[in-house]
Amino acid sequence: MHHDRSLLSQVAIILVRPKFPENIGSAARVAFNMGVKRLILIRDELPEREPMAKMATHKAAHLIDNMEVYKTLEEAIAPFSIIIGTTARLGKRRAMEKTPREVVEKVIPDLPNNQLAILFGPEDSGLTNDELKYCRYISSIPTADFSSLNLAQAIAIHCYELYYQIVYAPHAYEPRPHIATSHELEGMYQHVEETLLRIDFLEEKSHTYWMNNVRQFLGRLRLTSKEAKIIRGICRQFLWHQGRDQSE
Amino acid sequence: MHHDRSLLSQVAIILVRPKFPENIGSAARVAFNMGVKRLILIRDELPEREPMAKMATHKAAHLIDNMEVYKTLEEAIAPFSIIIGTTARLGKRRAMEKTPREVVEKVIPDLPNNQLAILFGPEDSGLTNDELKYCRYISSIPTADFSSLNLAQAIAIHCYELYYQIVYAPHAYEPRPHIATSHELEGMYQHVEETLLRIDFLEEKSHTYWMNNVRQFLGRLRLTSKEAKIIRGICRQFLWHQGRDQSE
Repeated sequence: MHHDRSLLSQVAIILVRPKFPENIGSAARVAFNMGVKRLILIRDELPEREPMAKMATHKAAHLIDNMEVYKTLEEAIAPFSIIIGTTARLGKRRAMEKTPREVVEKVIPDLPNNQLAILFGPEDSGLTNDELKYCRYISSIPTADFSSLNLAQAIAIHCYELYYQIVYAPHAYEPRPHIATSHELEGMYQHVEETLLRIDFLEEKSHTYWMNNVRQFLGRLRLTSKEAKIIRGICRQFLWHQGRDQSE
Repeated sequence: MHHDRSLLSQVAIILVRPKFPENIGSAARVAFNMGVKRLILIRDELPEREPMAKMATHKAAHLIDNMEVYKTLEEAIAPFSIIIGTTARLGKRRAMEKTPREVVEKVIPDLPNNQLAILFGPEDSGLTNDELKYCRYISSIPTADFSSLNLAQAIAIHCYELYYQIVYAPHAYEPRPHIATSHELEGMYQHVEETLLRIDFLEEKSHTYWMNNVRQFLGRLRLTSKEAKIIRGICRQFLWHQGRDQSE
């Protein structure tokens, strides 16, 4: 059983294209408050330090100075095995959506052996469907009809659940094994996609639709690194075999 | 069993001497987001509407326009039977402190028959000990060593717990009866104090200390209105009797 606050070092907050540097600062401040110290920014350029550092206050300014910056989400999440996407609740609940409490309960047993990234989209528009497809879990804060929590508030509630469940009220669990990272899964998906195209399972028209279904299905299996390698190996072998047959 | 969101109408957020009008607006916005629609302000004067309404956004501006304003906390809480005070965690946990989750769990069975006020102190200094003495529960958000959630974030987390437990994941409970309001309790405490002074139980030097203990003890009993009246009646009778004896 692990329930010490060192598990919080497995967690990163990823801000996907936030508009306002001040919000990056507020995010740093609230994350640090709850013991989360790793902040990753997806943005074409790093904003000026001043407005970020001011909102972070001097206590959390080092999160800004140590912030990792990437141009694409795919690069940033490559080393992570557990990815949570956050969405504002709009209209009816999507099937995959869970509350922050439920999602955190689910991922805690993974933390001893796996790194967790929580994704927050731009202030106005949120994460795109394309970005959500990387996410194993989708977390949505239950609110009344009017839903407009700001970025720092949404981060506060997610980090509150993490801190609460890890440090304050830990429950017993069996730590789970290493699961495949986003990088390993993406490599596997590419091989699977190529294979499915080759056998004409994926057609031009509905390509993305079916491939997203395949991603969700394979994502749900929580494959280990080794299992992802095996699936890639099978696809590679199939493709090689096909190529040989066709050249005969 | 009651678990509908109409229970949220039993809840008020009380802002005690907030410094910045913008924070009153943010508080309105986040409270309304979570279905809490009653906002009470303790302040010598009402701030300008503009900076409050701007932060509230037009969706929650009516909370600002309907906000009740009082000069003293005592007046404001008079009709409330359940009072939660919030504090930032400084150093070690006080004996009475609980987390927002624990406090909300405790008060929900009271909501069908009783009104709940959640008090938030000024941004820099928080609620005073004198203000905390009115509170049946003290709620403190668990955080890492560095604790500086802002006002709207603290309100967001408390309202998230309320909304979650009332609307999203209600559990079965027996609704509890009417309990005495703050106004009724304060009247009773005055009579009790007068009686304890008369019998020299309270001495000049340690007066406040012992009286706070008596308040906490009687507060924990969750007296009904009727029981509070009975205790007052006993005190009144005692005082009248004493007066008669002394004039003999």
